[in-house]
Amino acid sequence: MRFLHTADWHIGKTLNEFSLLEDQQAVFAQIEQIAQREQVDAVVVAGDLYDRSIPSEAAVKELNGMLRRLNLTDHFPVLAISGNHDSATRLSTGADWFARSSFYLNTDLASAFTPVTIKDTQFFLLPFFGIQAVRNYFHDERIKTVNDAMERIVAEMQKAFLADKHHVLVAHFFAAGSQRTADSETLIEVGGLSAVATSLLAPFDYVALGHLHNRNALNEERIKYSGSPLKFSVSEAQQEKGVWLVDTDPFAVQWLPLEPLHDITLLKASFKELMANAKGYPATDFYDIELTDRERIPDVLNKLRTVFPKIVSLHRTHQAQQLALNRQKHRVTESPLDLLADFYSQTLGGKLSPAQYRWAEEALTEATKEEQ
Amino acid sequence: MRFLHTADWHIGKTLNEFSLLEDQQAVFAQIEQIAQREQVDAVVVAGDLYDRSIPSEAAVKELNGMLRRLNLTDHFPVLAISGNHDSATRLSTGADWFARSSFYLNTDLASAFTPVTIKDTQFFLLPFFGIQAVRNYFHDERIKTVNDAMERIVAEMQKAFLADKHHVLVAHFFAAGSQRTADSETLIEVGGLSAVATSLLAPFDYVALGHLHNRNALNEERIKYSGSPLKFSVSEAQQEKGVWLVDTDPFAVQWLPLEPLHDITLLKASFKELMANAKGYPATDFYDIELTDRERIPDVLNKLRTVFPKIVSLHRTHQAQQLALNRQKHRVTESPLDLLADFYSQTLGGKLSPAQYRWAEEALTEATKEEQ
Repeated sequence: MRFLHTADWHIGKTLNEFSLLEDQQAVFAQIEQIAQREQVDAVVVAGDLYDRSIPSEAAVKELNGMLRRLNLTDHFPVLAISGNHDSATRLSTGADWFARSSFYLNTDLASAFTPVTIKDTQFFLLPFFGIQAVRNYFHDERIKTVNDAMERIVAEMQKAFLADKHHVLVAHFFAAGSQRTADSETLIEVGGLSAVATSLLAPFDYVALGHLHNRNALNEERIKYSGSPLKFSVSEAQQEKGVWLVDTDPFAVQWLPLEPLHDITLLKASFKELMANAKGYPATDFYDIELTDRERIPDVLNKLRTVFPKIVSLHRTHQAQQLALNRQKHRVTESPLDLLADFYSQTLGGKLSPAQYRWAEEALTEATKEEQ
Repeated sequence: MRFLHTADWHIGKTLNEFSLLEDQQAVFAQIEQIAQREQVDAVVVAGDLYDRSIPSEAAVKELNGMLRRLNLTDHFPVLAISGNHDSATRLSTGADWFARSSFYLNTDLASAFTPVTIKDTQFFLLPFFGIQAVRNYFHDERIKTVNDAMERIVAEMQKAFLADKHHVLVAHFFAAGSQRTADSETLIEVGGLSAVATSLLAPFDYVALGHLHNRNALNEERIKYSGSPLKFSVSEAQQEKGVWLVDTDPFAVQWLPLEPLHDITLLKASFKELMANAKGYPATDFYDIELTDRERIPDVLNKLRTVFPKIVSLHRTHQAQQLALNRQKHRVTESPLDLLADFYSQTLGGKLSPAQYRWAEEALTEATKEEQ
């Protein structure tokens, strides 16, 4: 069978004060066209359908419209899970009715172990989870880390594997393999607290991930982030956005790019150069502007806005260098938990107890939940 | 056919700081039992399913569970509309999937004119509406009052009437007949701004209303408020709560009371008497206490709470008399719009223009939206 893998729609997200609904509609229309043209047997959405746990009414209307279109108008089976940005409870409204028309929306750990079978493939829909939920589900307090949790989850899923089917996991978490690149260092070491080792995911023929917005975050043939369908921050300005088209038999995976309605462009130049060359840039696009000038320019943001109406950030080369230097000095090379343990022993002269360790770990997971 | 008429569930409502979820579960269980025992062909819920436009996660979970149970487990057709307390957009999530299993949830004026037919009856599901929405729908700025609006709405619905069917309207608004009693005076004169005349509803065989929590708010044979299934405030302490069981052929309507898990009781006595007789009252019930003492009693609320843990209001006879006197002085006998018009002419010396009148009317409707 053939399915489309997308994730991190973040419906309702704004870029600074600018609504992205129109941009999200435009990439959704392309996703729908791809699904139709490629005659997929299912559309997978790997979490973070909304941008926040209590989405705006406009976002609710928009997402409902998109899902209705895919499932009720176009008759595609839809396989979706809740991400860390979604409220599992709120998102689950209607899920029992959805399933009757092959729209499988899972927001609940317990339901992850009952696969949805479409043609030759069993799909396991694992929503974003906290470690405590996994401990509760298995009644096992020995589950301490996200890797302990995933080991148990995968073993439990394997019990339902049918030998004549392919097995696909749909999930929403940080995953990290051995290919740690310079770029992902911060992620691994700070966010590493909750990184799932890709080796644990080996039993699956394909893992459709959501959470990281960069489709290149992992370098694995069968474990992939689709990334977000749209650039959601300046840090994503140079990423190519798109969806994966996955065939199960024979296995094949293909990247299909999406065209944004308005791009995010990084500009680095002097004020004079920018004002002189503005005509070369679409006024409706989003801009991150780095000014190379050293002198003060009065009312510079408003002046730039006359030619670049949608500036999402404005900074100075000179200041930026200063900031980069500061960051270097305080560079984080240890995990937050290690830092906390050091601080504890330096100030109180003892080690964290196992209970304190677990408490700190949960608090940190909670605190980083909405980071990505 | 036979249907059950209920309304104003207000799932998520609290009575002071006390959650009512358990109480709401208990009356829901009775509603479900009645539906089963009486073998109804449909369950009508006439608006205000939630207590607020953004319900808590607990409320979302609770209402979803109840509707799932009625519709998917028990297989009752369910006919529901949004009330003024619901967010039409949020509540409508999943509605297109619901309709496929005979759960008709209408939150949209435009859909009110397409009846749902069950056996011998056409049901018209009219959600809570603002006058501007009716003007927009009919492209007619001459619609000024809620009665203008209802006249147009009913006429439009009648176009879809089939002669061999019965016709039931499900709606959520203030309705007022000619039977103005002393009790409902405030309602008619202050809330009267948006009261629909019952005479406009004559074309229907039955009108299943929500909005007012007292089933005796109207004295009409075929136009009824079911009231809320539970007492939601001290002012409802003496109302009997229940549901209507309606037969269409031959027409018959029957009141079936519901038993609250915890009642609201009004107590009027001295502090001494209350403490002495506390054992006669269930500790888990809710109490409104009027103290007849004249002297100050230190820490009186905490002392009373040792025997009546769930006090929802505490007041003094002496103070109450004083307050009643003040109310008398400023008694409202004119509608808010009339008062505003008087104020305007007294201070600015002119009459409200038609546009100002309309603007004020809309603002008042908006302001009183969540009052009931």
